[in-house]
This record gives sequence, C-alpha cells and structure tokens, in this order.
Amino acid sequence: MPKVSRKGSSMPDSPIRKLDQYASEAKAKGVKVIHLNIGQPDIESHPAALKAIANYSSPILAYTASPGIMDMRVQMANYYRRMNIKVDPQHILVMAGGSEALCFTMMSILDEGDELIAPEPLYANFLAFAHMAGATLIPVNSEIESGFALPHVSHFEEKIGARTKAILLCNPSNPTGYVYSKSELQDIAQLVSKHDLFLIVDEVYREFFYGEENVVSALNLDGLDQHVIVCDSASKRFSLCGVRLGNVVSRNKSVLATITKFSQARLSAPLMAQVAGIAAYEAEGSYFEAIRDTYQKRRDYLHARLSKIPGVVAPLPKGAFYIIARLPVQDADDFCKWLLTDFSLDGYTLMMAPASGFYITPGKGKQEVRLAYVLEESSIDIGMNCLEKALETYKLLEPVKDTAYLT
Amino acid sequence: MPKVSRKGSSMPDSPIRKLDQYASEAKAKGVKVIHLNIGQPDIESHPAALKAIANYSSPILAYTASPGIMDMRVQMANYYRRMNIKVDPQHILVMAGGSEALCFTMMSILDEGDELIAPEPLYANFLAFAHMAGATLIPVNSEIESGFALPHVSHFEEKIGARTKAILLCNPSNPTGYVYSKSELQDIAQLVSKHDLFLIVDEVYREFFYGEENVVSALNLDGLDQHVIVCDSASKRFSLCGVRLGNVVSRNKSVLATITKFSQARLSAPLMAQVAGIAAYEAEGSYFEAIRDTYQKRRDYLHARLSKIPGVVAPLPKGAFYIIARLPVQDADDFCKWLLTDFSLDGYTLMMAPASGFYITPGKGKQEVRLAYVLEESSIDIGMNCLEKALETYKLLEPVKDTAYLT
Repeated sequence: MPKVSRKGSSMPDSPIRKLDQYASEAKAKGVKVIHLNIGQPDIESHPAALKAIANYSSPILAYTASPGIMDMRVQMANYYRRMNIKVDPQHILVMAGGSEALCFTMMSILDEGDELIAPEPLYANFLAFAHMAGATLIPVNSEIESGFALPHVSHFEEKIGARTKAILLCNPSNPTGYVYSKSELQDIAQLVSKHDLFLIVDEVYREFFYGEENVVSALNLDGLDQHVIVCDSASKRFSLCGVRLGNVVSRNKSVLATITKFSQARLSAPLMAQVAGIAAYEAEGSYFEAIRDTYQKRRDYLHARLSKIPGVVAPLPKGAFYIIARLPVQDADDFCKWLLTDFSLDGYTLMMAPASGFYITPGKGKQEVRLAYVLEESSIDIGMNCLEKALETYKLLEPVKDTAYLT
Repeated sequence: MPKVSRKGSSMPDSPIRKLDQYASEAKAKGVKVIHLNIGQPDIESHPAALKAIANYSSPILAYTASPGIMDMRVQMANYYRRMNIKVDPQHILVMAGGSEALCFTMMSILDEGDELIAPEPLYANFLAFAHMAGATLIPVNSEIESGFALPHVSHFEEKIGARTKAILLCNPSNPTGYVYSKSELQDIAQLVSKHDLFLIVDEVYREFFYGEENVVSALNLDGLDQHVIVCDSASKRFSLCGVRLGNVVSRNKSVLATITKFSQARLSAPLMAQVAGIAAYEAEGSYFEAIRDTYQKRRDYLHARLSKIPGVVAPLPKGAFYIIARLPVQDADDFCKWLLTDFSLDGYTLMMAPASGFYITPGKGKQEVRLAYVLEESSIDIGMNCLEKALETYKLLEPVKDTAYLT
C-alpha cells in the first residue's frame, strides 16, 4: 500500500475542529452543544451581500480573472482608503478566504527549511500553512499575565537566524484578542527593516476593537512598503464566512507577481464570494458599528462570568472575538473532550477549543482554552452555567498530580 | 528588500493566461477576441444550480464542515453510483474546485524531492501543483501522430525510481482530448500495483466523450482501492466554473484522513458552490446528453476547418473539449502573441493557448497550440477565418530558419 507524504502525516490537526466528532456524538444523544469553540458568528451576513447573491442574473457562473474581478479589487481599495490606508486596486489580490491568502503568501516567500517567527499562542492554521510551505514557525512566548502583549522585540531578535524570512502577527489577535499598539508595531517595524524580513500581518479582525483607538494597520507603518504583506478576509467583517472571500495587500510588486502565479494555478477565486463582496464593501454603511457594539457587550458579559469562576484567569481582550482563559484543570484537552462525552446540565453542554493547539512549544497552554463570543448572551449564559458546574464535577474526577496551580 | 522564495520565483506561469495582457490590449484597441484559449464554456449553468443560489434563504452564509456538507457528499456519491462507480459519501471530500483537489492530493502524497510521472502534453497546472508540493513531474512523451495515445507502459516503467510516488493521468485528457481505453488503463493499473504507487486521475471531463463507449473511471480498476485517487470537478460537468466546486474520491482511508487535515486548515469549501452543486447533482437529468451533442458538433466543425488549412496537423479528439493542432510556424508562442498584438481580420482576432506550456521537456510542442471548442460554431468560424489568413500573413514575416516542417 503506498504511503502518504511525511508532510501529510505530520500536518497538524485543527485544534478547533478535532473535537467535532465528540460534538456530533453528544448531539446524537440529544445534548445541545453551545459552540464557543469556533469563530462562526451568529450575526446576519451583510444584507447587501445576501441581496446581490439572490439577484445575480448571469446564466453562466464563469471563472473570474485570477487576481479577482477588477470591481472587487476597486471596492476593496476603496474600503482601505476609508480606513485611511492608501492602497490601489493593483496592490490587492482576491483570495478564497483569508486561508488562501495566508497559504499563497507563505508559499511565495518561504522555501523548505526557511523560518518565520510569531508570538504564541497563535492562530493554529498559521502552523498548517507554514507546514505546507515546508517552513518552520518559531514561537516567541507571550504571557497570559500581560494579557498576551507583544513580547519585547529582543525576544524576536534572538530567534532571528540565517533562514529567517518573516515575522508573522495577527492583529487584533486570534486567539488572544490582544490589539497591538502603534509603538509595539513600530518596534517590530524597526526589527523587520534592520534584518530585511517580510512582515506578514493577518488583519482579519480589523473592525473588532473595543477601545477608543482604531487598530493600526501594518500598511501604515513607514518605510515598510517592500516588507509588509497583509492578509485579510470578509468572513468576520461582513459575516460571510462561508462564501470564502479574502485578499492579500502588498506594495511589493515582486510579491504580488509571485502570488499571482499561485492564483493562476487555481484559476479563480469563487465568483459568488466576489458578487457578495462587491455589494457588501460598496454598501458597508454602519454595519460595523452595530456589530462592534454587539460584540463588546458579549465580551463584557463573558469576561464577567469567567472572572467569577474560582481558579479561572482570563485577561480582558481588546479586540477580535476570542478570550483565552486558564482553567483550574491539569489538562484542558481532556476537559474539553469530557464536556462533550460525559457532561451535561439541563440538556446542554459547552464546546471550547483547547488552547494547546494554539501553542508551538510543547506543554504550553495545557490549562488554557479559547472561547469565541460569537453567540448571543443567553447562549453564553447557558455555556457559563455549564462551565461552572463542569469544573466542580471534573475537579473530583481528575487524578491529583499537582494542585499547586489551584492556589 | 526581502526576496520571494525560490519556490515562488520558479513557479511556472500559466500558459493559458500568460497572454491575457495582450488580449486586453487588443480589446482596448477595439479588436474583438475569439477566446479559444481557455476552457470556459458558453453553455448555461445547470438551471437547478442557478435556482438554488437565487432561492438560498439562510441569513448567515456560514462555514460548512471542512470535508463538505454531508448532503453534498451524498449527492456526489449518488452521481458516481449512477455512473456505476461504487463509492460512499465518506470516500468523498468536497473541494474548492478540481484545482484544490489536485493541490491537496499532491501535498498529501508527495514530499520535497519526490517524483510523479505523467504523459505530456499535460494540463499545465499539474506542474504548478507538483511544484507547490516540492515534487518533480517526470514526463513521458505522447505523440501527435498517434492522437496522443498512452505511450507504452515500458516508457513509464523506465522512469520509475526510488523517489517515484505516483502516476498521474487526465482522462479524458486536457489538453489532448484523448480518452484512455480500458486496456490502456489496465496496463497502468498493473504497473501501479507492481511498484506500489498511487494513481491520481483527473476525471473532470468524464461526461465529455464522443464515441460509443463510456469513459472508464480509475475507480473501477480492480485491486486498486488503496492506490487510486480521483480528482473531480463540477466546473465542466454543470458549467459551474466560477463557483469553485470539486472533490476528491478515494477508498484509501489514510489518504482521506490526510487530505482532511489540509481541508481543515482552509476551514471550508465555498458554501454557495455546495448550494449550487447539491441542486445540480440532484437534478442532473438530461443535461449531459444535450451538452455532449453540442460539443460533438463543435468538435467536428473545428476539426474539419483545421484539417483544411495547409500545413496544419490536428488529430480528432475523442473527449474533453480541446484540440491540439500543429501549425506551420516555427514558434507558436510568438504566433499566438502576434495574433493579439498585430493581427485582425474584419475587426476580429483569435486567442489560442501555445502548447509549449503543456510540455515539460524543453523545446517540445513549439509548433503546437491548444484550441478549446467552447464557443458556438459561428464564433469558431470567425476564429478559423482569422487563423487561415493569419498563417498566410505570418509565414511571410517569420524569419526563415528551417522550412523542412512545411513540406
């Protein structure tokens, strides 16, 4: 029997989706599962997008140009300009989601054995896309105690070697919710300039911030036109996760030309995604303000509930729609699985993403989980009731190894 | 300035799309371009697919399960069963087009330095996806004189080495239109068994054959359950190129589990593609028969016109919707470009894909082009008038190096 590749067999499992089977089994038993494990918002898609899809009248659903429909690129450029980010349509390539944007970006700048550096915990699929490119992701640990602020740049600099090609950030961060400040980004900018590296920033959650100041885009860092590649997506922005619409933005022509070759190989980004996206970006309106308000309330509610549970540590995130919480358990992977296989409260249980999969360093994050506050408060309420009760029950079942963490 | 990867800089350009810029310039000058360069049919998308998209009423366009919506996998399995191919929904993974199916398949079985063997000329993007996986595509030359029949298996066997992981076919073949016979496929099956290789077959054009016998699917080859991976697509089948709907089929659990990890990394195949696909596969009906008849007429017309042009050699294809033609020119790349930059007849010109990009062996296919008979006969007529006249004119301009090929 022929064997799969080493690349395939060592490809990491998705920490967000690896418990899916247990969730299905729980549902089959009649237990209702509160999904705080995945960033699928319950917010309605932008109405202009829904309308554009329903009204699309061409009788042939044809390939689009590989870099994207020109009107889509124009609408995206207009959006960036409204955000005071000066880019032109030719700086933008349309992708099948932020996922494809990340995948083609990494393929375009990384060879087998190359390295890129990112703070951990990080979006788990960064690891998957780096793996696909044959590259190694080198982590710099950020700490729950500081709310996952950017580690001092010296910690990045000491990891830079002959094979380092890029620094990778997610801002606002999935999974931590941290929003990098202008001064943190300027520190990284200096480092990137000094060592002539690429700076890849996933800015998918740009609209999701809960403070006074807007998120600073890497595209607005001075002197980095040849270094910065921003990966972006309409999934969260317009609640269009399923259509698969994302994009790359860079002012580096060589990067754009290279990514275009990968885009040509897959022929076309999805047409209906672009039909939806053109309409949503054009209409935009006050969609974000309403959403931001909704999420801020959910964040505050979830954070307040978590903070009341004995032994739980959860910094208040400033952006995105995730909270990382440290739980009073020894093995959050086991606890999250147990919630699905053995626990229910009034017919409900809770699904969370174990945070170990968001860390590269072995053993890190073993007590942590990621919760996505993408559901309405009544659902979060049920989920938190489950969590409170489950922690009490699980504590009695867990083999006692080391209780120091409980203090 | 940081540099793109070697993988990126050596990524091949698309031979189908690399002349796009010249076509745009021709159009800007007011010349109408007859596009026989690309497999974008003018056939209307399956009406059930169009209706399903227009009527889709969920207010949230959400991620789907990474392996695809279960009903999509069921409908695909039903389709295969109607074609007498016995597979179950769990043997099928839904992809963003045949492109993603090929990309994830190659990533799942090929490591850096591995080899796969395919007859040339071949679908150019096979080369691109192998390149992304870090693997080398080893060509076995097929000949225009035999209509691009499968080369004797001994030619495949002599290329098999320690790093060979797979044999790759496209059946019916893009770009040659050749349909492999059962006995040819059985010869390949024996070879694959003997050397314990994977057999990847792109069967995107399964419905497009113009003889009496159905296309033989690799899924129906005896004893190859662990070896065969079929890549498929709804693009041509239901004229749904733009929605990006494809799939992988295999009975090898390890392959399926590995491809699933790549699927999880990109989260979801496009939702609207699956909405369209569920409806089209369920309705199917007599859609294929009508299309097959249309294409057969176009093929016969295009082939008859080509055959009348002095110096043109073009075998009659038995499937897909492409013809490879050898032209009485020394450099078809230059000729195809010249058609767009310097030629017009009554306000029209013709765009073809130079075939050199479909060969791996340097220098092969220099006089050949690929024509896609995806337009109605009146357009093919204009295109052939252009070709006749253009060959006469170009002959006088072309520097005389060697005229032996004209005899």
